[in-house]
Amino acid sequence: MPSSKNKQGDRPSRLPVSVSSQITLLTDFGTADHFVGAVKGVILSINPAATIVDITHQVPPHDIDAAAYTLLACYQTFSAGTIHLGVVDPGVGSARRPIVVQAGGQLFVGPDNGLFSHVLDREPDYKVFHITSMQFFRNPVSQTFHGRDIFAPVAAELSKGLPPETLGEQIFDPVRLPSLRPEITETGTEGRRKIKGRIIHIDRFGNCVTNIDRSVLPESDEQRVSLVVRGKRIEALQASYAETSSKKRLFAIWGSNEFLEISAKNRSAAKILDAECGDSVVLKFA
Amino acid sequence: MPSSKNKQGDRPSRLPVSVSSQITLLTDFGTADHFVGAVKGVILSINPAATIVDITHQVPPHDIDAAAYTLLACYQTFSAGTIHLGVVDPGVGSARRPIVVQAGGQLFVGPDNGLFSHVLDREPDYKVFHITSMQFFRNPVSQTFHGRDIFAPVAAELSKGLPPETLGEQIFDPVRLPSLRPEITETGTEGRRKIKGRIIHIDRFGNCVTNIDRSVLPESDEQRVSLVVRGKRIEALQASYAETSSKKRLFAIWGSNEFLEISAKNRSAAKILDAECGDSVVLKFA
Amino acid sequence: MPSSKNKQGDRPSRLPVSVSSQITLLTDFGTADHFVGAVKGVILSINPAATIVDITHQVPPHDIDAAAYTLLACYQTFSAGTIHLGVVDPGVGSARRPIVVQAGGQLFVGPDNGLFSHVLDREPDYKVFHITSMQFFRNPVSQTFHGRDIFAPVAAELSKGLPPETLGEQIFDPVRLPSLRPEITETGTEGRRKIKGRIIHIDRFGNCVTNIDRSVLPESDEQRVSLVVRGKRIEALQASYAETSSKKRLFAIWGSNEFLEISAKNRSAAKILDAECGDSVVLKFA
Repeated sequence: MPSSKNKQGDRPSRLPVSVSSQITLLTDFGTADHFVGAVKGVILSINPAATIVDITHQVPPHDIDAAAYTLLACYQTFSAGTIHLGVVDPGVGSARRPIVVQAGGQLFVGPDNGLFSHVLDREPDYKVFHITSMQFFRNPVSQTFHGRDIFAPVAAELSKGLPPETLGEQIFDPVRLPSLRPEITETGTEGRRKIKGRIIHIDRFGNCVTNIDRSVLPESDEQRVSLVVRGKRIEALQASYAETSSKKRLFAIWGSNEFLEISAKNRSAAKILDAECGDSVVLKFA
Repeated sequence: MPSSKNKQGDRPSRLPVSVSSQITLLTDFGTADHFVGAVKGVILSINPAATIVDITHQVPPHDIDAAAYTLLACYQTFSAGTIHLGVVDPGVGSARRPIVVQAGGQLFVGPDNGLFSHVLDREPDYKVFHITSMQFFRNPVSQTFHGRDIFAPVAAELSKGLPPETLGEQIFDPVRLPSLRPEITETGTEGRRKIKGRIIHIDRFGNCVTNIDRSVLPESDEQRVSLVVRGKRIEALQASYAETSSKKRLFAIWGSNEFLEISAKNRSAAKILDAECGDSVVLKFA
Repeated sequence: MPSSKNKQGDRPSRLPVSVSSQITLLTDFGTADHFVGAVKGVILSINPAATIVDITHQVPPHDIDAAAYTLLACYQTFSAGTIHLGVVDPGVGSARRPIVVQAGGQLFVGPDNGLFSHVLDREPDYKVFHITSMQFFRNPVSQTFHGRDIFAPVAAELSKGLPPETLGEQIFDPVRLPSLRPEITETGTEGRRKIKGRIIHIDRFGNCVTNIDRSVLPESDEQRVSLVVRGKRIEALQASYAETSSKKRLFAIWGSNEFLEISAKNRSAAKILDAECGDSVVLKFA
């Protein structure tokens, strides 16, 4: 839903993304306070035609890694031109930069703290702009709630067709998190490959998502690997939750985001393993 | 918002429901993971004009009974043509069928596991189709997330006017849950009626919803019944929460869905009773 | 989105607010039950073009004070004509009045129990109408769920342009909560000012929001005040979360709603203080 602004001839450049009016929200605000309501109020005041989608507001407070994973896991289901507003912002009020990222045909608005890091890894053809055009901010800007005062109005303006480069200078040093890529080593005299990954997310069902993806484990090798996690050896790589026997409770399975997951049929693998995020997962080849 | 597809002459039949672009979601996904965001991304990518409504994502993991009750409790507030996407799917990846149900002027999309069972009980004039038209699915279809890969795109296509019978063959044996109808018996030499029901839901306020509905307890009998639940006898059937005395803490009341509920004024009846879903409720006539 | 009703010549008066189709929801329904879904179903059945925004459904059951604070904290971010549906309704089924409030260019629909009290304090030019026009209610009206049966349909009709005065007589005695204004006293022989406030909200991050606002603490006095809360003295009034030293863990800061908050950098001040809502906060001038 491009606004009439796009028709003006004095815009810096034409938008390289097709602009929709879809804005997603990903925050650590929880849903009990007024925070989410305030952000939505600001967006709808500026663009009443925006379609706002909650990805989640249950990111653990200040947990940038968790937010970065969650965004990675779903941004590609949205259409070109979608604007993702990500606000997990422990540095609010400090010198950390507000940024807008243009990547994969979509836009990402939030603090420069690594939140969009995994998207940048996946979309090498990205551009990042430092948001400095204060005329788009709420006035005054509070010291504690930039989600409402900076990021929400900027996202709303973008959803009306404002080109991202209007917001400030391009920057080339956005903050990056450590890559999700696991460590691959050849060990011993036989030169056996070993992949050392970790649990990067535990979902509601207790599935333990690892950072081992299909790029490091080709299909031809799938049937000759075993995993070791928290001292337990897991042999089977299964095709589905349904395909299981009662004895072998834990199994590995390709999750819906192409990461290897450790699961149990209709039970929490995380509970069985007493696992938590960060736990090491070693994949060995027979 | 019927799509242009409806205008094509080669469609199998005209839609018997008026199609809106309202899609409700009822899942056990929780709201902390990316699952709900992914489903919404897929829907909006296919139909940007869809209005998506969350019924709940807090169904206890894999609890089909709870989901079936929740859907029953609110589907009738939605207008004709609404599409209800229900994904509580412990059998994902197995041979269980994906289905679309046409009932009560609305559509229901999800796994064939009983989730729509109570709707079928209430809307005898239903049709069920086995979804097999893979051209509407995401490609590839994962083994673990059919909510995103099958049900969301199908719901989105339906919201654009795709006739449900386009999706696959009609089937006549959808999975059914045990009926919610309580047991009615005549006991003793006096032939006294007794109704044996159970608690089918406990809501946020601690109200215990039973499966005893108005069809088995006519208004004329209301003042001569008593309930026994967890060894406690409850005499009063009240008209409202407000009408109460301090002594008789527990009372029965017609809930907003025409089921008898056990309540306490501004307190949790479930806590007072230490009750849980499935507990027996016996209704005796004086 | 004014309905065709507005074109009729016999309407009591023209609307003094510009009507949008934005409806916010603020309830204690939680998100696990069917309640929110039912309310949205009713609204969308009446006005399919309504944009529904969840402020929160996590108000503690029956906690009118918490709901009143949350509404105060965000209603001003919404545009003129927004309709706020507030349902925290322990008196449902009793004689408490259903009302619609017109204030600050917006409309507020819910029970007359103080929920809109702080809005009335901030918007002295308000009008309150007692909702009695039953033709807009669902039929029948349940005794336990007026959110679905009275407030939702009324909000939906308002979003289509129904003038609020159509709903019933104006009233002049809406229920009010105690004001949020703190107590200001001059004490001792030196006539020192002292402000006695309290914690009115603890947010997800553990920030303790007090009822001390900028009107009672001018900027010129900011650097010569200290706070006492739960026996602890807090000296520093900081400009941002980021500006902190490791020793002084607790600090005061102007929150995003112009109330003084007690915070700790990336930690829960409420946990450090073992604080809860209602705890006294004394502000002393040096």
